Amino acid sequence: MSVRNEVHPIALSDGRIRVVIENLQPAVDGGRFPIKRVTGDEVVVEADCFADGHDVVACSLKWRFAGSDWKSVPMEPLVNDRWRAGFVVDALGSWEYTVCAWVDPFQSWRHDFARRIDADDVRVAAASGASLIAACADRADSALDADLLRAWARELAQLAQDAATGVDALKRVGNDAARAAVACRHPDLRHAFTHPQTFPVTVERERARFSAWYEFFPRSASDDAGRHGNFADCEAWLPYVKQMGFDVLYFPPIHPVGRSRRKGRNNSLEAKADDAGSPWAIGAAEGGHTAILAELGTAADFRRLVKRANELDIDIALDIAFQCAPDHPWVLEHPDWFKKRADGSIQYAENPPKKYQDIYPFDFESADWRAMWLALAGVFEHWVGEGVRVFRVDNPHTKAYAFWEWVIARVRALQPEVVFLSEAFTRPRVMHRLAKVGFSQSYTYYTWRNTKQEITAYFTELTQGPGREYFRPNVWPNTPDILPAALQYGGRPVFMARVAMAATLAASYGIYGPAYELLESQALRAGGEEYLDSEKFERRVWDRTRADSLAGFIAVLNHARRTNPALQSDAGLRFLSIDNEQMLAYAKTSADGANTVVCVVNLDPHHTQSGWVELEQDALGIQPGQVYQLHDLVTGSHFLWHGARNFVSLDPHTTPVHVMELRSRLKRENDFDYFL
Amino acid sequence: MSVRNEVHPIALSDGRIRVVIENLQPAVDGGRFPIKRVTGDEVVVEADCFADGHDVVACSLKWRFAGSDWKSVPMEPLVNDRWRAGFVVDALGSWEYTVCAWVDPFQSWRHDFARRIDADDVRVAAASGASLIAACADRADSALDADLLRAWARELAQLAQDAATGVDALKRVGNDAARAAVACRHPDLRHAFTHPQTFPVTVERERARFSAWYEFFPRSASDDAGRHGNFADCEAWLPYVKQMGFDVLYFPPIHPVGRSRRKGRNNSLEAKADDAGSPWAIGAAEGGHTAILAELGTAADFRRLVKRANELDIDIALDIAFQCAPDHPWVLEHPDWFKKRADGSIQYAENPPKKYQDIYPFDFESADWRAMWLALAGVFEHWVGEGVRVFRVDNPHTKAYAFWEWVIARVRALQPEVVFLSEAFTRPRVMHRLAKVGFSQSYTYYTWRNTKQEITAYFTELTQGPGREYFRPNVWPNTPDILPAALQYGGRPVFMARVAMAATLAASYGIYGPAYELLESQALRAGGEEYLDSEKFERRVWDRTRADSLAGFIAVLNHARRTNPALQSDAGLRFLSIDNEQMLAYAKTSADGANTVVCVVNLDPHHTQSGWVELEQDALGIQPGQVYQLHDLVTGSHFLWHGARNFVSLDPHTTPVHVMELRSRLKRENDFDYFL
Repeated sequence: MSVRNEVHPIALSDGRIRVVIENLQPAVDGGRFPIKRVTGDEVVVEADCFADGHDVVACSLKWRFAGSDWKSVPMEPLVNDRWRAGFVVDALGSWEYTVCAWVDPFQSWRHDFARRIDADDVRVAAASGASLIAACADRADSALDADLLRAWARELAQLAQDAATGVDALKRVGNDAARAAVACRHPDLRHAFTHPQTFPVTVERERARFSAWYEFFPRSASDDAGRHGNFADCEAWLPYVKQMGFDVLYFPPIHPVGRSRRKGRNNSLEAKADDAGSPWAIGAAEGGHTAILAELGTAADFRRLVKRANELDIDIALDIAFQCAPDHPWVLEHPDWFKKRADGSIQYAENPPKKYQDIYPFDFESADWRAMWLALAGVFEHWVGEGVRVFRVDNPHTKAYAFWEWVIARVRALQPEVVFLSEAFTRPRVMHRLAKVGFSQSYTYYTWRNTKQEITAYFTELTQGPGREYFRPNVWPNTPDILPAALQYGGRPVFMARVAMAATLAASYGIYGPAYELLESQALRAGGEEYLDSEKFERRVWDRTRADSLAGFIAVLNHARRTNPALQSDAGLRFLSIDNEQMLAYAKTSADGANTVVCVVNLDPHHTQSGWVELEQDALGIQPGQVYQLHDLVTGSHFLWHGARNFVSLDPHTTPVHVMELRSRLKRENDFDYFL
Repeated sequence: MSVRNEVHPIALSDGRIRVVIENLQPAVDGGRFPIKRVTGDEVVVEADCFADGHDVVACSLKWRFAGSDWKSVPMEPLVNDRWRAGFVVDALGSWEYTVCAWVDPFQSWRHDFARRIDADDVRVAAASGASLIAACADRADSALDADLLRAWARELAQLAQDAATGVDALKRVGNDAARAAVACRHPDLRHAFTHPQTFPVTVERERARFSAWYEFFPRSASDDAGRHGNFADCEAWLPYVKQMGFDVLYFPPIHPVGRSRRKGRNNSLEAKADDAGSPWAIGAAEGGHTAILAELGTAADFRRLVKRANELDIDIALDIAFQCAPDHPWVLEHPDWFKKRADGSIQYAENPPKKYQDIYPFDFESADWRAMWLALAGVFEHWVGEGVRVFRVDNPHTKAYAFWEWVIARVRALQPEVVFLSEAFTRPRVMHRLAKVGFSQSYTYYTWRNTKQEITAYFTELTQGPGREYFRPNVWPNTPDILPAALQYGGRPVFMARVAMAATLAASYGIYGPAYELLESQALRAGGEEYLDSEKFERRVWDRTRADSLAGFIAVLNHARRTNPALQSDAGLRFLSIDNEQMLAYAKTSADGANTVVCVVNLDPHHTQSGWVELEQDALGIQPGQVYQLHDLVTGSHFLWHGARNFVSLDPHTTPVHVMELRSRLKRENDFDYFL
């Protein structure tokens, strides 16, 4: 903002620019950071544009794909000097927009002319109008428009000169709306003002907005307890993942695991000879962040797995954890990238009194930061080269924001399909900053939001707060690090309710499986959130054939998501009133209003709960008195509702949720079936 | 914002700057415009300052009087990475502030050291701390601090080296809070980040925030109907104005009135020979905006009047109306400053089909705009030279915003005491823009806000909306242009209620008198707002001795304002619940919490209304069960209240308002009197 704080020096600026542009939206931190969209989205821009006095103001929205020519479209007035227009982003990458406004002499004249009564005034004004129209003709870049406008100007000028012309004739010609529309296409922009800033947009592929993640340890992919899982085993899991309806399959780090100070089972300090160690203790003599743990397979095996997954429209997501085991090659090659303790040893990760001796963090204040940034960028670049298009980034909040802004832009410039998920469970400002600097999606506090009040407040903030332009939530009911208390004590009803809310409240969600669908609920210690026998420190074998598996239930949820656009965006969520504190009700509607899903959840895992839910019929396009139908996408039940208040009852021991598509109109004749 | 949209080029920026500063407040349009304060105010600044990771962040507020050296003070943490500090503005003029933040290695070490348990760790960490403390000593600009810190560093280093030192001794010395406070005074700022913008403050004198205006036509100052009033007559009115308690006496334009197309009484198109014309039709052969109408007196008379007024602590405010009568000298000298019609004549003011043939507006798109701006600035400069310190600007919304921003800054640079009131009754964005570009005070919609709902919503917006930092309301129950319907039909109770609300809801208010205190209520036409026999077009003689004059009531209101700090600021207003739609209740509290005024208004001019008003006792510092006293500053009545709900009844035919000082504590022994 170069004009800030500056009293326009009279010698330099043009005092004749009378129009101002204020409060241009959307804008993240005044345009410092991009808003986020996916291909095909419309970016709707609003601004206050006005001038002094009574002259008519016009304005246009300008936009471009970075580096291309600017395009523009006239903005339409709303109320109170607010204007709006939109444009569609149809390519991946960086876009930008701004607003141009001007006092429009022709439109001002037209507005006044229409209101004139006195015959002499009309005649004088007609002559003025003829000059303005002639000027429009001179500016026209189309010969057709120029000819039309010149003829109009001549006609009006001649009528104004001829004393015999009546007021009616002058007004009829001067007020000609069709020719005025042509004149408006060639405005006088001599005193136009273009907002001095451009406002950036990051456009990603749809999966950045709408995705279902399945996290899974390749080390446990083998069905044989005696054998370490490998990428070929993972391939065999793909149909299972696909059947459940997930579209991102995310692996913890696949690199060599450090041997020095390796952790044993259940995070014990001493590893036994056959302990696999934590995949987040990255790096050993054979390689670091671009190497693959030998037990998992070769680079060729990995590439084949990525290809097979892609054939099923599944992205393989890698976990990027920028930290090193003590035997990572970089520790030897680049000791300057790490902090030293006073005794000369390298500082391991700690949060006193907690210590993580098997992990060395990078020092982002290293004098050699440039080389380090390039090396870290190289990790992304390597895996992009191997076909990876989704990265889950571990603890990004312990690395410099400026680094993320730089590296994400660099990787996107190389491959704009790449999606970045920020795994930062930390303070709200920090999580938002990471989203602003470029992460496509962000972990959330959903994992610990259980009550009706908590969930309502949190998702209202996520979907309606300022973060809605840049912070895309990806909600997880569990992770390998977090077995929340609700899952430890609530049993199957809570597992069902938590995954159903995740899948329907947020457009992106994920689970850590098979621990989730197999209802794993044993914590290492009472009061803690660590899993007992965590896969972080050992291989596990899972019996996916168990009768109590939630795989089928999850498949139904993901099918509902794929077939209902309302569930594919975070916008359009609103909570509904229901007169029971143990029940949560909400509706989501697609941007075009054509699809609405109504969800009701029993938050009490022990008792059947019931209540009266209130729908805002107006917002849903339901006429008073109209009967409408709710089709439960989980159970297949159909309900006929009418009026604002309807009764719902949910038994947690069967299905604690309704996920119901609203069918308020008879779309096809056989929709009558639903009323039977 | 030079960094907008830019991915830090790795070759240029310092990637080691890890701290970020967001959401710095207060800021008007991101710092584009100044916030407003008066001398003696504290500017309280908040910002989100945080870094990646767990290191300790520190930050400081920096500020300066424009052109002076920067000062700074440490900011204190609130919650959620929000920090706060304040500074006092003790001189008129332009100030600016910003925030500097950094990751603090010493404080990070101190935080970790305090939590360490393991003996080896403590010893290694103590050695690290000794190095950091020694570095603080090297940065210290005070020899005393440097010596103290060096001694501390040596002591800690020696203890750490000595294997015999116990953990307790190391921790005692390392955790020394007094010496740590000294170390914190010399932080390592190598990777500090200063917000790239400075945020401006305009500091004015107290009258910009707290003022009571009396508008009055000097032409009517004569008690002799046959003689035009003059400045000597005005002098004789000063004691009357002073007794009522006003501190700004505002005159409509005092310049020669145009003769060409002069308007007659009641806005008739033809003036009679003795008609005075509208003072807003400025300029005649003898002079324009810097001349004085001969009938009013000489420049010396004017200067004497200003001096007499100032002796009574009254400002004389002039009305600056930038428009010309057809015989204004500038019309001949600078025809380029005005728009031409197609017939070559100069365009008079109009809003078709309304015409104002006696007034030519300036053309702010004139090619000669630079000379015109300088000439208009010269008008202010002339009257500042004559001693004027307050200007009411007529219709500023029909002149370019850039001009106002330039001219107000120019005049303030000449004389920082000057106060500008914007008379713009127009669309909200326009009124706010004028306030942003520099007007000290702004007319409001109060004139037309009558019901409880309207007043509550409007004053909540004025005092709590974003405008609170720059838009200072000056509320008027009437003006020479506006006799609102409520005053035409409501009689004396409405006159009392409207002025009482004006005086207590807003820190600045005004009336057009003597029309107001003498209850003038006849409109020119039914359904219109023009006064019958308006002083805009003729001289009037007023009988100030009338028994029904509200002068005494107004004097009581202004006395209450002067003696109650709560009424001297727009902050601290909140509306109270009262269970009667015809009654309005609100409380104002001073910034220090020491003074609270509770007002209750009967909005019904016909009937006695009563209701139960609810006070938030907590907010007022009243203990549950405590009896508290309300002293009515209008009637002198005392009321003992207790509990949250108390009964109020108001008869509009006696006094339709309570303006009550809250006395919740016994301040002096004789406060007991009030309980009798």
